[in-house]
Amino acid sequence: MTDSVKKPYVIGIDLGGTNTAFGIVDEKGNVVAQNSIKTQQYPDLNDYMAALSGAIKALIEESKVGIANINGIGIGAPNANYYTGNIEHAANLPWKGIVPFAKLLSEATGLPVSLTNDANAAAIGEATYGVAKGMKDFIMITLGTGVGSGIYCNGKLLYGSDGNAGELGHVVVRRNGRQCGCGNKGCLECYTSATGIVRTAREFLANDKTTPTLLRNYKEEEITGKIITDCARQGDKMANDIFVETGTILGEALADFVKFSSPEAIVLFGGLSQAGDLIHVPTAKAMNDNLMPVFKGKVKLLQSSLIGANAAILGASALAWEL
Amino acid sequence: MTDSVKKPYVIGIDLGGTNTAFGIVDEKGNVVAQNSIKTQQYPDLNDYMAALSGAIKALIEESKVGIANINGIGIGAPNANYYTGNIEHAANLPWKGIVPFAKLLSEATGLPVSLTNDANAAAIGEATYGVAKGMKDFIMITLGTGVGSGIYCNGKLLYGSDGNAGELGHVVVRRNGRQCGCGNKGCLECYTSATGIVRTAREFLANDKTTPTLLRNYKEEEITGKIITDCARQGDKMANDIFVETGTILGEALADFVKFSSPEAIVLFGGLSQAGDLIHVPTAKAMNDNLMPVFKGKVKLLQSSLIGANAAILGASALAWEL
Repeated sequence: MTDSVKKPYVIGIDLGGTNTAFGIVDEKGNVVAQNSIKTQQYPDLNDYMAALSGAIKALIEESKVGIANINGIGIGAPNANYYTGNIEHAANLPWKGIVPFAKLLSEATGLPVSLTNDANAAAIGEATYGVAKGMKDFIMITLGTGVGSGIYCNGKLLYGSDGNAGELGHVVVRRNGRQCGCGNKGCLECYTSATGIVRTAREFLANDKTTPTLLRNYKEEEITGKIITDCARQGDKMANDIFVETGTILGEALADFVKFSSPEAIVLFGGLSQAGDLIHVPTAKAMNDNLMPVFKGKVKLLQSSLIGANAAILGASALAWEL
Repeated sequence: MTDSVKKPYVIGIDLGGTNTAFGIVDEKGNVVAQNSIKTQQYPDLNDYMAALSGAIKALIEESKVGIANINGIGIGAPNANYYTGNIEHAANLPWKGIVPFAKLLSEATGLPVSLTNDANAAAIGEATYGVAKGMKDFIMITLGTGVGSGIYCNGKLLYGSDGNAGELGHVVVRRNGRQCGCGNKGCLECYTSATGIVRTAREFLANDKTTPTLLRNYKEEEITGKIITDCARQGDKMANDIFVETGTILGEALADFVKFSSPEAIVLFGGLSQAGDLIHVPTAKAMNDNLMPVFKGKVKLLQSSLIGANAAILGASALAWEL
């Protein structure tokens, strides 16, 4: 991954709508130190840059790695453009419009910076260290605060004509459906993200006020993807039905993605994917039910083998070896 | 395109649900002789192979090119697999299951044969001779008897893990919508193919029996895409509304495709695309209405610059230079 002129460490940053997780990574892919700050706490971009660069410098110092040994910073962020270094119109981040993120962080830290879509970073991580190792054609779907995707075609990450390929979370799955932060209605991420499944749970509870369910033990505004998962694991029928509906919508969308790039596998990543069979079984069924004979039963649906935030940190960090 | 050991001519075959058009092509891309047979006339595959190989040999003889000067045969066909040479489960062809088409035609003609999806062949033709020349990322959509697609990513035709990438005509645009020949419901080609727009016209006529329209001058079973086009060009409101509905459905689907591969352009090809502004204007509007800011107004919607059957023949023939 590195040659002799490279410095021995890189920094990977996973910039999410809720948290910004970052870590120092060595040449073998070990995360030797990590920390995070709250993204939503900094509506002002300058405040955020000061907090992030300060926390990174502190981590470099505490870990005794030293800034002279850092080759650069790689970032995975929503709507990040690999070609320009900008974050452009990200619906789930506090800063609007076009943000020259790589340039600003490079100025604040004194280190070279490269960035890509957060889901692309996860896909790079999966291709380098995870279940997609050796695959030339696969699609990574991240089920987080939003829904993202990173697409490998012919052994390479797909960037498209302008660096913006792979916005599968905004493919419309219900015409005139739920309002999405992107301005459109009925996007995949309105249904299969952590926030999407909570919206579905609220609809189920509003439409059926009598059937007993553990979900009624919580205030409506307290319900999270984790609570729905816990209830379903205790055998709660409504919580299970919410997963079946969520997985069905996801599987229907995946079938359409297969018709585009005919991948060897689709890899699920992120909080909701960790619900295991609860989400994987209905997703795989709906995907295969909606495929033509030429594809049916051929496409593997896999769970990411990289753990939590580290996958995104590792993927993002891989970018920084090229700096 | 050729080196010194290549023979100076190739044969390109455009195998469609209705017609099989074929031509002899020289090194500069001139179609020096061409002919066609009726695909639907041969429900038995052996009869078809005999008719096609006979017609090809006759054309070679009549044109005085001579079989010794033919480098090989390239074929564009529905559901054709570049890797295997098979046609697999093609909904719009008379022969079911998996047909070893390249092998059979090679045995019948004594010439080497390579084949790809008909829409892929059209995309290769467009990239080599047409409006997509020089583009690294574009999507070709063919609006014929069915709806096909050929996708260029990073300067190469996208084949996917198994050669079956680019079946965008079977992306579901209306969940539980019209029955498709592929077994699924609501596929794009049920709405935006030549047969799809006729189904829409029948629905319009069935739902509104009073508004005057030129379409009522025809028996229902006589109506074709061309008749709807002619009526719309004469200012007929219902015929125009049918195009608006068809273009809207197409544009909504194209917006989703843009979110996948972020192409520089989408090129429309085939009978229905020749209706010009009637189809292009509502398609472009619906596409842009359904794109996020990062894509809006950036993706060109182009009409193929290659004429009719020749585009597919040229695209298919290009495959045969590699034999």
